[in-house]
Amino acid sequence: MANGTGPQPALRRRNLSAVVHAVAAGDNISRAAVAAEVGLTRATVSTLVDELIAAGLVTELGAQRPGTVGRPGTALALSTRGPAGVGAEVGVDHLAACVVDLRGTERARVTVEARNRGRAAAQTLGELAGLVQQVTEEAAALGLHPAGLTVAVPGLVGRGRHTVLRAPNLGWTDETTDLTVENEANLGALAELWLGGHHSHPAPTATPTPTPHLTDFIHVSAEIGIGAALVINGSLFRGSRGFAGELGHVPVYPDGPRCSCGARGCLEQYAGEEAVLRAAGIAPELPGRLKALRTGAADGEAPVLAALETAGRALGIALSGAVNLLDPQAVVLGGPLSELAPWLLPGVRRELGQRVTGGGALVVESRLGRDGVLLGAAYSAVRAILDDPSEWIAR
Amino acid sequence: MANGTGPQPALRRRNLSAVVHAVAAGDNISRAAVAAEVGLTRATVSTLVDELIAAGLVTELGAQRPGTVGRPGTALALSTRGPAGVGAEVGVDHLAACVVDLRGTERARVTVEARNRGRAAAQTLGELAGLVQQVTEEAAALGLHPAGLTVAVPGLVGRGRHTVLRAPNLGWTDETTDLTVENEANLGALAELWLGGHHSHPAPTATPTPTPHLTDFIHVSAEIGIGAALVINGSLFRGSRGFAGELGHVPVYPDGPRCSCGARGCLEQYAGEEAVLRAAGIAPELPGRLKALRTGAADGEAPVLAALETAGRALGIALSGAVNLLDPQAVVLGGPLSELAPWLLPGVRRELGQRVTGGGALVVESRLGRDGVLLGAAYSAVRAILDDPSEWIAR
Repeated sequence: MANGTGPQPALRRRNLSAVVHAVAAGDNISRAAVAAEVGLTRATVSTLVDELIAAGLVTELGAQRPGTVGRPGTALALSTRGPAGVGAEVGVDHLAACVVDLRGTERARVTVEARNRGRAAAQTLGELAGLVQQVTEEAAALGLHPAGLTVAVPGLVGRGRHTVLRAPNLGWTDETTDLTVENEANLGALAELWLGGHHSHPAPTATPTPTPHLTDFIHVSAEIGIGAALVINGSLFRGSRGFAGELGHVPVYPDGPRCSCGARGCLEQYAGEEAVLRAAGIAPELPGRLKALRTGAADGEAPVLAALETAGRALGIALSGAVNLLDPQAVVLGGPLSELAPWLLPGVRRELGQRVTGGGALVVESRLGRDGVLLGAAYSAVRAILDDPSEWIAR
Repeated sequence: MANGTGPQPALRRRNLSAVVHAVAAGDNISRAAVAAEVGLTRATVSTLVDELIAAGLVTELGAQRPGTVGRPGTALALSTRGPAGVGAEVGVDHLAACVVDLRGTERARVTVEARNRGRAAAQTLGELAGLVQQVTEEAAALGLHPAGLTVAVPGLVGRGRHTVLRAPNLGWTDETTDLTVENEANLGALAELWLGGHHSHPAPTATPTPTPHLTDFIHVSAEIGIGAALVINGSLFRGSRGFAGELGHVPVYPDGPRCSCGARGCLEQYAGEEAVLRAAGIAPELPGRLKALRTGAADGEAPVLAALETAGRALGIALSGAVNLLDPQAVVLGGPLSELAPWLLPGVRRELGQRVTGGGALVVESRLGRDGVLLGAAYSAVRAILDDPSEWIAR
């Protein structure tokens, strides 16, 4: 405890993280404001800030509020060069990769169509590696260096994050990789937690209303299946085996149609992409099928509206159970599903209003939409640096 | 930080708690074994133990393992005198109070029948105060002194724990009291967490199988309504408004019969006590009605078996959703419901087996049964002492 590896480095680690988070949260914040924010002396903060600047994590933006009297504080901000997070995404019919800087701003991105259903995992991941290479090179030209890569997959991921236990829509079972993989619904929820920003959306024409930063919410997304993830006390909740958030197999009509999982009447049978497309009369293999769904809904096509009404109601029933159990601050609709929010939300809100103890629940729409998963994947490495800058500095 | 109220007392507080918890968990444990367990020097532990002994929380039981060679360690145990926890329970048709010692052993108890439905809260709580007085006097004769009282109620409790927001089965709305109140389902779950002990119960005749200590579970109990509580990471999970665990209003058959909450097809309409009694043809006001249900089931009466089959299936459907969302280590059946476990569990297990991602869930039956709620209420004060003995010592 007294040999220099004990409390002092731990304290320094915590303080560095507190300072860098204060800089991240502040809008061109001064050293004095950081000191006030984190409760350390200005001298201590100055030393830590100098370390962060030397490490390329923080930059000085010149005088803050130049019009004010006295010696102006120097405004601090996270660097737009230096370490960056790389994210990649395996969808059922697309691949994508992107780079975000420390501020969470996307700086490079590439998306390609790809038929990944039933394709060998090695082949899919090989093509993905090419995209990662491409965005990494683009980012390097901007002075950004990859600090970590996370690959989003539509499936269950093992605890070590190097095995996809099963991704039925890709046809993957027990695929192990050197890459760090994570469930797409989890990453969408983390993006919401980290990069925030959502708005209430009572009707397609209403003005979005900002809501406070959420730390306890159910995040619902969908691509083919229904993905959900729980954020509890500001952390992703994974459950005892890492299987938490399986909203898609919550029973909605217990005697309903047989699901791919073997049970009957799961939410996925009413609100999963395939089920909705089938009910709407749109071919599930059609490229741009979600756009077709949106267009059909906007044009008032009866089968499309009916399919979305059924989906919204089923989603509302399943979420009523979830909200009654978890009493979250909000339900957040994200991922591709959020693009259908204007047609899904009325049913969701109606069921929640009728079924939730204590009178309904706040339902908000993610501003990140379908970008959330990829941004969450990319920001994971950035978040790790902000949570422990000393480790990055020691590299 | 250097004026004597900072880290040192905090450290002492943590260490005292670690030591007293080690004594509580150990079976006649020695000072040396406590030191090994908590990772402190033997000298420090001895000082802390002496403090705990002086405060009447810990006693010495004389030489440990007298047959061993060398200076025998003195066995330590929690005191069976001194501070005690008092619990009280308001049921729909009974009142109860009990006292437990530091070891969690019940030392005094009284239960009376009472028609509390629709009775004025003040009257009910007045009668309850008499019972508390009675058990407190009994306990005093045993050298036990009340350290705190918690009253279990079948309803929603406000954050400050002095208001029952609503207890529909009692007819209470916004009843405020000087007493500390807590939801009965929460206390049942806490009793399970603290006093543990449950067994798998695949069939009425099978030998109970012990299962490991649980820290993440859904605890289901019932008296009239269905109560549930979530324990996550070894703590009761209350939700953002304190409403978490409302399993009774999880939709099971969304177009089913109208529930008292206004929605349709809630679990309570199939597995709540009133619904089961109605389906079984037993008068809901009958004293000993649960016993009648048990007897009828044991005698193979068809309507009773059918009612319990329906209830078990509905419980299994609602719990499937809950397990898919939360991925707990286990579902624990407790409260009066556990007495019907032999007839409910087959349906519960069948639905979970078919509907839970990853193949079913462990379902266990609480050994505490209907005593859990009252014991949890009484042990609350004891737990507070064990978690911070220094505060008790400073009184």
